[in-house]
Amino acid sequence: MGRVTDSTRIRTVRVRDGRLYAGRKGDHVAVEEPLDIRLNGQQLSLTMRTPGHDVELIHGFLHGEGLIAHREDVSEARYCDGAVVDPGSGVPQNTYNVMDVTTARPQLLPHVARAFTTSSACGVCGAESIDAVRRKSRYALQTEWRLDPRVLLSAARALSAQQAVFARTGGVHAAALVDLEGNLLVVREDVGRHNAVDKVIGWALMADRLPLRDCVLLVSSRASFEIVQKACMAGIPLLACVSAASSLAVETAEAFGQTLLGFARAGEDGDGRMNVYSGEQRLDLDAAEG
Amino acid sequence: MGRVTDSTRIRTVRVRDGRLYAGRKGDHVAVEEPLDIRLNGQQLSLTMRTPGHDVELIHGFLHGEGLIAHREDVSEARYCDGAVVDPGSGVPQNTYNVMDVTTARPQLLPHVARAFTTSSACGVCGAESIDAVRRKSRYALQTEWRLDPRVLLSAARALSAQQAVFARTGGVHAAALVDLEGNLLVVREDVGRHNAVDKVIGWALMADRLPLRDCVLLVSSRASFEIVQKACMAGIPLLACVSAASSLAVETAEAFGQTLLGFARAGEDGDGRMNVYSGEQRLDLDAAEG
Repeated sequence: MGRVTDSTRIRTVRVRDGRLYAGRKGDHVAVEEPLDIRLNGQQLSLTMRTPGHDVELIHGFLHGEGLIAHREDVSEARYCDGAVVDPGSGVPQNTYNVMDVTTARPQLLPHVARAFTTSSACGVCGAESIDAVRRKSRYALQTEWRLDPRVLLSAARALSAQQAVFARTGGVHAAALVDLEGNLLVVREDVGRHNAVDKVIGWALMADRLPLRDCVLLVSSRASFEIVQKACMAGIPLLACVSAASSLAVETAEAFGQTLLGFARAGEDGDGRMNVYSGEQRLDLDAAEG
Repeated sequence: MGRVTDSTRIRTVRVRDGRLYAGRKGDHVAVEEPLDIRLNGQQLSLTMRTPGHDVELIHGFLHGEGLIAHREDVSEARYCDGAVVDPGSGVPQNTYNVMDVTTARPQLLPHVARAFTTSSACGVCGAESIDAVRRKSRYALQTEWRLDPRVLLSAARALSAQQAVFARTGGVHAAALVDLEGNLLVVREDVGRHNAVDKVIGWALMADRLPLRDCVLLVSSRASFEIVQKACMAGIPLLACVSAASSLAVETAEAFGQTLLGFARAGEDGDGRMNVYSGEQRLDLDAAEG
């Protein structure tokens, strides 16, 4: 039970061609608030996120860092009741921005230090970042299916239609898990694209659906190293992003045998496009000929 | 002197309407590589960035965190020569991804711990984040000028034309400092929008131009809390972003008396638009009537 506020109405002045524009004065902006994550009593991370689905966010984040593997690894996750006292009423407040997570094995804590300390070698590079993911990852990626790319374009179209906060604010990214028939299993939006991904993977982990062998991760944003990392950790064989992928995203996907698609966009008239950066074998490029 | 690689050519497969598309097979992606920042011998931060202008990036980052105020505060910043030995040649390698920074006052280190440890109160919230910026900030924002919004639209048009890496890859953000005549003083691109901002502010700090009283910061991305924070710390009175602003970005700009503009877009036919979230008094909305 928490406060869920994904957008808020503010007053804006609209300017067109250098002049005050007599349009409507109310506008919605995406809510950004800090979330302080504490693991077994110790501060772990402070992330700026859009409130809502915070428990999923935390599960996904901890999984992406290799700190938890199963939902049973988290014995409790709850908002801190608050040591802050409202100056007006004298009543203790819960800001819903601090979450205490207790793991079933408290000895996870020493791992935290390791996970967040990078190699002390002077040669830190992309290859080392990929190796670090390999050390943490538990799943090999499924290679048994091939997907008609048109299924992905249809899912991308469906995702656009479900980006409710984006429609109001233009200020959030979305992530979705998609099954092999193109159905959206879960959609989450957040000011941070990493958070949106953490929320959908956290949802899957809490539903005991990992590894996500028969799933596609669809993101409305670009694909960076971190997005590919999170998808690999969850066993997702195919990642499709609406915008570009970075060099390290492509290298990481290649190293894990993941299919990475960029610029996956459904056109206005039903046609669509995508660039295949890696793992072409999972796409059935003959299906459209039939 | 370092390796500067902002984009790289890879092989991609293009798919249109579900079919293999016989277009060109080469594609450029933006380079993303880790940068390990070490301050006075201690690891401070690992950020994913596009190589190039790393010394500026580090100056801007340290300034945004309140760890340095002047260029003289950094006595040395150089790439670690590398303890890594190339397995083929046996020659020590410099990955150009690790930078050692030495400050003129080594006692800066205790401040690091403070800067990166958030409040231990259970009430962390947007207001506390704003207070933290207030404690670190040294400049009041200039209130003496008013700008014709058409100057900003013209600068936004000029920025689009100068986004060389974006034109090749579609995968980076840009930040620019703009003077009151609309001239672009410096433009930087990066896979991380925060890094692009750090690079332009670092450029200004190294040129001894802080506070940036008579400057506008223009970003090709959305405006988050962190972008507003960095701009306030550098004394920039006006921040214009091409996309949306978040709730906490607007609240922070209001708290500092900063002018925050969103959706600042120059139209194809020379007209343009923007939403004014805060600090309307710095815009001369009558200029276009004259």
